[in-house]
Amino acid sequence: MTESINQQVKLARTPEGEPVPQDFEVAAGSVPEAGPGQVLCQTLFLSLDPYMRSQIAGRHISGAIKPGDVMLGETVSRVVSSHSDQFSPGDIVRCPGGWQQFSLHAPEALSRVSATDVALSNYLSVLGMPGLTAYAGLVWLAGPKAGDTVVVPAATGGVGAMVGQLARQRGCRVIGIAGGPEKCREAVEELGYDACIDRKAGDMAYLAAELDRLCPAGIDIYFDLVGGELLNQVSMRLAVGARVILCGIMSELNSAARSGGPHPALWIKARATVHGLVVYDFEPRREEFVAACLPAIRSGEIKPFEDCYVGLEQAPEAFCRLMRGENRGKVVIAVS
Amino acid sequence: MTESINQQVKLARTPEGEPVPQDFEVAAGSVPEAGPGQVLCQTLFLSLDPYMRSQIAGRHISGAIKPGDVMLGETVSRVVSSHSDQFSPGDIVRCPGGWQQFSLHAPEALSRVSATDVALSNYLSVLGMPGLTAYAGLVWLAGPKAGDTVVVPAATGGVGAMVGQLARQRGCRVIGIAGGPEKCREAVEELGYDACIDRKAGDMAYLAAELDRLCPAGIDIYFDLVGGELLNQVSMRLAVGARVILCGIMSELNSAARSGGPHPALWIKARATVHGLVVYDFEPRREEFVAACLPAIRSGEIKPFEDCYVGLEQAPEAFCRLMRGENRGKVVIAVS
Repeated sequence: MTESINQQVKLARTPEGEPVPQDFEVAAGSVPEAGPGQVLCQTLFLSLDPYMRSQIAGRHISGAIKPGDVMLGETVSRVVSSHSDQFSPGDIVRCPGGWQQFSLHAPEALSRVSATDVALSNYLSVLGMPGLTAYAGLVWLAGPKAGDTVVVPAATGGVGAMVGQLARQRGCRVIGIAGGPEKCREAVEELGYDACIDRKAGDMAYLAAELDRLCPAGIDIYFDLVGGELLNQVSMRLAVGARVILCGIMSELNSAARSGGPHPALWIKARATVHGLVVYDFEPRREEFVAACLPAIRSGEIKPFEDCYVGLEQAPEAFCRLMRGENRGKVVIAVS
Repeated sequence: MTESINQQVKLARTPEGEPVPQDFEVAAGSVPEAGPGQVLCQTLFLSLDPYMRSQIAGRHISGAIKPGDVMLGETVSRVVSSHSDQFSPGDIVRCPGGWQQFSLHAPEALSRVSATDVALSNYLSVLGMPGLTAYAGLVWLAGPKAGDTVVVPAATGGVGAMVGQLARQRGCRVIGIAGGPEKCREAVEELGYDACIDRKAGDMAYLAAELDRLCPAGIDIYFDLVGGELLNQVSMRLAVGARVILCGIMSELNSAARSGGPHPALWIKARATVHGLVVYDFEPRREEFVAACLPAIRSGEIKPFEDCYVGLEQAPEAFCRLMRGENRGKVVIAVS
């Protein structure tokens, strides 16, 4: 081992509202040593995700992060030293490495990455948690059929970009919603959306009118990542037999206030099937998902669409940009 | 034919809020004659259902009833004369006969009742639309497993009584909610609920505390017939993997105001599957449902639990009682 410093990013204080870089601090820890049965990993890539805003607020299903704690996060890492016969130095693994250069794990916490002929960062984007979220919700729960009208908010984000591409692959008519003309252009030109509504080009009434215009026969599938009033507006426009995937409340992540949801009569009228999705439940089917998606990623049919920053010290700023919706695709930090 | 008067009940005026008998008028129409291809039916039993409140408000999926119109409704009727070779005088049929003694139909609108060894009114209750609603929602959509905790509001009403009995039959723990101690007693003693919460015994906080007490491991299935704040309270108490059937908004039927629904985060947390149910969609599977339920109805294992009034002129008062929640089971009018 050539390094003895373990660069880490800790939560400095619990943010109010939209986080700023000063809510985090870069610290120099020491590199831990692997004890009996443990595996020491060096972080190659770190994933930054919207759900982390709920973790630092203490509101997330996966647990809370308090000031002074190292930030949590999924990583693609390389095994440095191993006291487990299941892993050897040099192995590439996915693990909950957190916002740091080195992390210790029990072997059960590691998943080997076997197909290393694609960019390793892909295991945090299209082949990672956002990809599995998109695949489980769209393919396994919603069951898209060719010709279905699929609406995807946060259309170019980590999950949305994969939902859009998977839906297009299945012959759906895919309508994105994104913030700003540049994201909308990327959604259509790079990700293959049939159209993309710029949510910053008008108010909710404008957005609703655009949905009416672009989904004249109603919405068959809504992959909800944002909650709020948009979920209500979409629910008014569902086609009979619609499927709604509830997967995130991005519009409310920076706030503790909670609005109500759509009136149940809207979902009765559409005979909607609504699924609450937590990606962790689909962990046992991850290999099935990776095997299903690898060919299209190798061929370039599905693009990773990653927003990659180099250096762990970029993570606070990158996370704040993500929370302001300024990211361009899945946010990944190249750490080592 | 011995009668030449066709007694009918018409909507006299569109009610504001809770309907009163004066919103209806009993009229003497004339008995129509069956034209080519038509079948004349005499009403034996008429079904009164909460959805009719939405019809007379012009808010129901099946269409609006305006002042002066004969009230619509499902009936069990006897064929009086037939110009169709599919039906003969004396045949017993289900049809949309409405609130009147005689009605004319195209043969496509009639369904023959073949098993006439059970009370014919049962084809409007446990073997009728409420029964099919309960069966489709609970058995086909929610998929109850033995040991599941099932919560049923309006527990002794037309749909609720059947949901409760079907759930009990499948080894579920069944918790009812009903208005008043007498209904709660009936729910437990006659319909086999494990417990029944009297919603009139306290406010919503009381109801929520009772749900906590009676469903300590959470609610696996909620068959929603009422909407409103109760749906929100139940959604906060769902077990992981819960199923919610959205089937009615009885708490709001007398009002045009609409509250919001549960926050999506509640359904995400529970990984809930939520189904909007419109019973008409299950019409093609009606015979399957009747065949599945007939044995338990013949044996008495499933009780019809009907609130039967004699004479069509009783229909307005019976409907108003239903809308005040004063019915004791499925409301049926014995017409002829």
